[in-house]
Amino acid sequence: MARLDGRSNDELRKVNITRHYLKHPAGSVLVEFGDTKVICTATIQPKVPKFLRGTGSGWLAAEYSLLPGATETRVAREVTRGKVSGRTQEIQRLIGRSLRSVMDLKALGEKSIMIDCDVIQADGGTRTASITGAFIALVDALETIYDPQTVFPVKDFLAAISVGVSDKDEIILDLCYEEDSKAAVDMNVVMTGNGDFVEIQGTGEEHPFSHKQLTGLLATAESGIDELISYQKDILGNYLGWRIGREP
Amino acid sequence: MARLDGRSNDELRKVNITRHYLKHPAGSVLVEFGDTKVICTATIQPKVPKFLRGTGSGWLAAEYSLLPGATETRVAREVTRGKVSGRTQEIQRLIGRSLRSVMDLKALGEKSIMIDCDVIQADGGTRTASITGAFIALVDALETIYDPQTVFPVKDFLAAISVGVSDKDEIILDLCYEEDSKAAVDMNVVMTGNGDFVEIQGTGEEHPFSHKQLTGLLATAESGIDELISYQKDILGNYLGWRIGREP
Amino acid sequence: MARLDGRSNDELRKVNITRHYLKHPAGSVLVEFGDTKVICTATIQPKVPKFLRGTGSGWLAAEYSLLPGATETRVAREVTRGKVSGRTQEIQRLIGRSLRSVMDLKALGEKSIMIDCDVIQADGGTRTASITGAFIALVDALETIYDPQTVFPVKDFLAAISVGVSDKDEIILDLCYEEDSKAAVDMNVVMTGNGDFVEIQGTGEEHPFSHKQLTGLLATAESGIDELISYQKDILGNYLGWRIGREP
Amino acid sequence: MARLDGRSNDELRKVNITRHYLKHPAGSVLVEFGDTKVICTATIQPKVPKFLRGTGSGWLAAEYSLLPGATETRVAREVTRGKVSGRTQEIQRLIGRSLRSVMDLKALGEKSIMIDCDVIQADGGTRTASITGAFIALVDALETIYDPQTVFPVKDFLAAISVGVSDKDEIILDLCYEEDSKAAVDMNVVMTGNGDFVEIQGTGEEHPFSHKQLTGLLATAESGIDELISYQKDILGNYLGWRIGREP
Amino acid sequence: MARLDGRSNDELRKVNITRHYLKHPAGSVLVEFGDTKVICTATIQPKVPKFLRGTGSGWLAAEYSLLPGATETRVAREVTRGKVSGRTQEIQRLIGRSLRSVMDLKALGEKSIMIDCDVIQADGGTRTASITGAFIALVDALETIYDPQTVFPVKDFLAAISVGVSDKDEIILDLCYEEDSKAAVDMNVVMTGNGDFVEIQGTGEEHPFSHKQLTGLLATAESGIDELISYQKDILGNYLGWRIGREP
Amino acid sequence: MARLDGRSNDELRKVNITRHYLKHPAGSVLVEFGDTKVICTATIQPKVPKFLRGTGSGWLAAEYSLLPGATETRVAREVTRGKVSGRTQEIQRLIGRSLRSVMDLKALGEKSIMIDCDVIQADGGTRTASITGAFIALVDALETIYDPQTVFPVKDFLAAISVGVSDKDEIILDLCYEEDSKAAVDMNVVMTGNGDFVEIQGTGEEHPFSHKQLTGLLATAESGIDELISYQKDILGNYLGWRIGREP
Repeated sequence: MARLDGRSNDELRKVNITRHYLKHPAGSVLVEFGDTKVICTATIQPKVPKFLRGTGSGWLAAEYSLLPGATETRVAREVTRGKVSGRTQEIQRLIGRSLRSVMDLKALGEKSIMIDCDVIQADGGTRTASITGAFIALVDALETIYDPQTVFPVKDFLAAISVGVSDKDEIILDLCYEEDSKAAVDMNVVMTGNGDFVEIQGTGEEHPFSHKQLTGLLATAESGIDELISYQKDILGNYLGWRIGREP
Repeated sequence: MARLDGRSNDELRKVNITRHYLKHPAGSVLVEFGDTKVICTATIQPKVPKFLRGTGSGWLAAEYSLLPGATETRVAREVTRGKVSGRTQEIQRLIGRSLRSVMDLKALGEKSIMIDCDVIQADGGTRTASITGAFIALVDALETIYDPQTVFPVKDFLAAISVGVSDKDEIILDLCYEEDSKAAVDMNVVMTGNGDFVEIQGTGEEHPFSHKQLTGLLATAESGIDELISYQKDILGNYLGWRIGREP
Repeated sequence: MARLDGRSNDELRKVNITRHYLKHPAGSVLVEFGDTKVICTATIQPKVPKFLRGTGSGWLAAEYSLLPGATETRVAREVTRGKVSGRTQEIQRLIGRSLRSVMDLKALGEKSIMIDCDVIQADGGTRTASITGAFIALVDALETIYDPQTVFPVKDFLAAISVGVSDKDEIILDLCYEEDSKAAVDMNVVMTGNGDFVEIQGTGEEHPFSHKQLTGLLATAESGIDELISYQKDILGNYLGWRIGREP
Repeated sequence: MARLDGRSNDELRKVNITRHYLKHPAGSVLVEFGDTKVICTATIQPKVPKFLRGTGSGWLAAEYSLLPGATETRVAREVTRGKVSGRTQEIQRLIGRSLRSVMDLKALGEKSIMIDCDVIQADGGTRTASITGAFIALVDALETIYDPQTVFPVKDFLAAISVGVSDKDEIILDLCYEEDSKAAVDMNVVMTGNGDFVEIQGTGEEHPFSHKQLTGLLATAESGIDELISYQKDILGNYLGWRIGREP
Repeated sequence: MARLDGRSNDELRKVNITRHYLKHPAGSVLVEFGDTKVICTATIQPKVPKFLRGTGSGWLAAEYSLLPGATETRVAREVTRGKVSGRTQEIQRLIGRSLRSVMDLKALGEKSIMIDCDVIQADGGTRTASITGAFIALVDALETIYDPQTVFPVKDFLAAISVGVSDKDEIILDLCYEEDSKAAVDMNVVMTGNGDFVEIQGTGEEHPFSHKQLTGLLATAESGIDELISYQKDILGNYLGWRIGREP
Repeated sequence: MARLDGRSNDELRKVNITRHYLKHPAGSVLVEFGDTKVICTATIQPKVPKFLRGTGSGWLAAEYSLLPGATETRVAREVTRGKVSGRTQEIQRLIGRSLRSVMDLKALGEKSIMIDCDVIQADGGTRTASITGAFIALVDALETIYDPQTVFPVKDFLAAISVGVSDKDEIILDLCYEEDSKAAVDMNVVMTGNGDFVEIQGTGEEHPFSHKQLTGLLATAESGIDELISYQKDILGNYLGWRIGREP
């Protein structure tokens, strides 16, 4: 049976990544997963957090935010509520860990990359769109400081997707907001170009899930990630895509 | 002598307002004054602040924020710094006062309009672009709840522009960031379609200005506002533009 | 090859749960996983969050904290740093979701259960010890208000354990702090008495992991959970254990 | 027609400035504009903000606060509300900018002047009284560190006054609280001894104002400022007054 | 041997209380203990804290603050530091408890008295001056709502004074700042008109004190309090003084 | 007439101090005064606050907190309320001052001792139990860095106890929570092994107390302190107890 928007269960929404979206940051994209739209920027800063000073190693951190008009009901700014919500903290820690997993922080040297993901329109999957788009912004930013004598500090491609068990007990890929709010199980998967897992976060608060369902969820996620990484390779093109994971 | 981008002294940058920019808010635009780009949204909320409850009168408030990647050097999120800066507070109070000046809050009834101006790219004039764009988002939002038996709660058109005294001692209109950072005098003017002043905020911290310079600044601002209001009338079209300031 | 403390790879540390540890809260335990010691309390409050008022449904929320002396280097109090850290937020959201997954919140009625997990000594696995111990405190607290005419609002047993890939590339169960800080992959698994998954959170920031490793991690976690749930059944005894998941 | 307190439209309230009001700060005054009473102090600090270190240039910043008992209804302390209000921020930024406009920050050297304006009784015009009084506290503070070989770091006199359009559509000077709360237009003007404008902030939220009204408001403000600067010259006396704007 | 300012060991500084110091609050005084100057105000509010609603009983709370220019080195505003310091909290809790001890909160009815003590110049003894002055502001405020059919809600006079052991090992009364900063022992005593103790807070952090010294400190404090209460009776006069502690 | 728990008026509750309670901190105890249970830890840090840098002198500070489940009704965490309460601030300042009074901070050198008192169960007297127990944790911590060539930096024993005037107008020692909540007068006394007073904090908010009652309260407190210090000597034993207050 077809989904809300007519997709088949293992079909992604239309994905689009616009490179060089803003003029100031070193790297910037607009990433769209269907109606979900996120501006991802990557900024290079000449210093590292205290715990890394003098180690020769770099760092990457991420911040995430929803614009007030991004959701169906206006969402209050976090500065107004006085603190970053638990949900935001989890998402920005996830984005940071995921991108660091494919970076060679030694090769970067004592610099920091700051990733900002600002959701201008939300329709489910904002964290997976953020990771998938921020990867492109990161590569574009690093290209601006690349020295061909050295290793390019990105070791592999990286993308993320959501999977879930629908209210009809079917396994579905890339949930939109309405599907997500009804899903029995919700899982986010982050994987590398090499097919390894970086993060698996699955939760069945309403309906604990069986080992068999878990197997299906992971297979569906893997096929979605494959498609996203192909798209990333296309838009980066041979020139940049070739650099990832190569020795100098 | 020509300006940085070849404009004459009393020339606006290219202005563009894209209506219906986002799918969730009642009103939303992307406003561009040259490279300055702001998403303005207007949301209608069914309640008013405490001091207005039971008065039959409505309210409008505004919030303003810079995305971290909007400026040349990344700007830290206000939630990270833990508070709204003085500059942000001044701007959002200015946007709110300006838009309220052309509203008939009694005709609105006990509802609140929340205006959000989020700058995705900054190149000078973010507050004047915000006011000029938010006016359109406001009209679009109010149209969604308009009851033809009643007065449309917007009494007049409204736009804002910056003027200044350049480092060459010339009066210039609609300053870009580089001009603004060098200007001796900086002034923001908000006016109605009827040609009245709503706000004048001029400051000559580095170079106090004479009465004669003041006269020139105001004349230049008035011509810029005229042009902006013509543009607003064009994009709203007869259907909506006609409604503003009319009896039912 | 043996682990630091001589355990085999799939062996739990010594687990101990002391019921009725404090005199004031409705339910309270001291849970020990080796040197990790957590005080878990469950308090019943007569009201629910706003979004549930009038729905007839109850709620459960959790808070987690480290005492300053719990860790090797003194950890600053969160009130001193002025905010709850991202790590704490993730853990308390995880504890809350996990316990809610085995509750019948309708059967609870419009009451809230507040779970507090305060770590007095930390040696790895504080979140899994918290979930496993808090389950017992929850059952003890609910027993104090149990009405035999109704359904006991706990539907199933629940326990949690950590697994990981060690620096020697072996899959190990219930990591102590030193193992955890060296592990290539770190995964927390929460399961029900029925053998279903409630949460899987695995991260390989330093070393993405293969599908085959994932299979091994899950199997090891499942055997550890089995053992923990047997222990929970022992200490609750037939009288209370029998009530879980039964009709009145 | 006479005003509430019998003044003519272009008449100031009784102005009084008591120098050396407190024993600790380098400069301190009690300034009174009618019933409005403000303690203004100037403190000299041996360091400058980060962005000026090593430039040889000094700085001046201002803070403003209402005592809880200053207003008709007790006003909550800002520390209790947890943040500085937008109104306070605007006022302290205005006071700082205004005083800096007549300072020679290079001549001051790498020192900071901290201005504190604490309103002990409010009856309209607290910001204009603050600027006018703080100017005297500033001169007194700088005198304590003055080296006759160098330029005195104050270049010109400075005063501020409010003007407005009353509810009877008349232009009035130096509004008391009751007049201010009814005024259609409210404008604050800051000027130098030389007759130049430092700040113009006019707002007609309730009633946008015409070009003609603007002309009248400015003329009335200029005459009020003249009178205030004469008074400042009187109380500073020849000895100190002579120093302002002179070469060594 | 004489003290810094020539006083004998058991001599108060010059005490002065100016009633009706501000025009807005119901009660307001300027209290001076030598160079220590505090504005104390009492405001009546028509509601009580939650824990008293419906009990028929009133409340009194106090806030205390130092103006930035009050001390030798400028003291940062608490809103700037983001929180009320421990010292401030202790003082305002002390002022509140002390004044409540002589109030008949039942006779007050469901109203709150808010006491504000703002130190404009500090030279030791700000908390004892605050209590002694706030007592007069409180009586003046209550007189404005007094109904002669009922009990006046103040049961007794109240004053406070500091005593200490000097660096010369002598017991001294009413310490100025310089004496206080050198004192071995510092004690604040609050007493009623009836000669009973309301608060004793003595601390010998640098030099623990003997039982014999304690006896001397208390005797000296008692004689100082006697003098302060005589002064309070004088300035309130027979008309108001007579009302305190009397039946209607 | 006997007290709630059958004690005589001048009898302590059962006191117990368990040394080496936790494995990480340099010193740690569990102290019990009846049902009041507090974990006290002492941590040594290699630096001092700014105002002591370069002076050769050390420092000691204390923090205090109630676990949420420690009291009859769950107490909200301070981080949730966003600030340390006035009560907590008073207690941690008292603990810090008291312990510093028996330390030789010069002999300690430029190190800081951080004392943490976390109440896991509260039944009155948490601050006096904290001081009495923290003293032992402090001695144990200092022993870990003791160099026999130097002075041991603790000069004397230290203990604290509460006394009060009961609702039956009797003087009682070591009040439990129920007695404390009914007491007319509440006093905390901190004394050294030498019999000198370090702190006296007595308050009679509800019932001011006479000079005669004060004499009785102090005598009762002194006998309680004697007993506590004997107990401290017993559990430290000759080896450590002998070191306190001795030259090398």
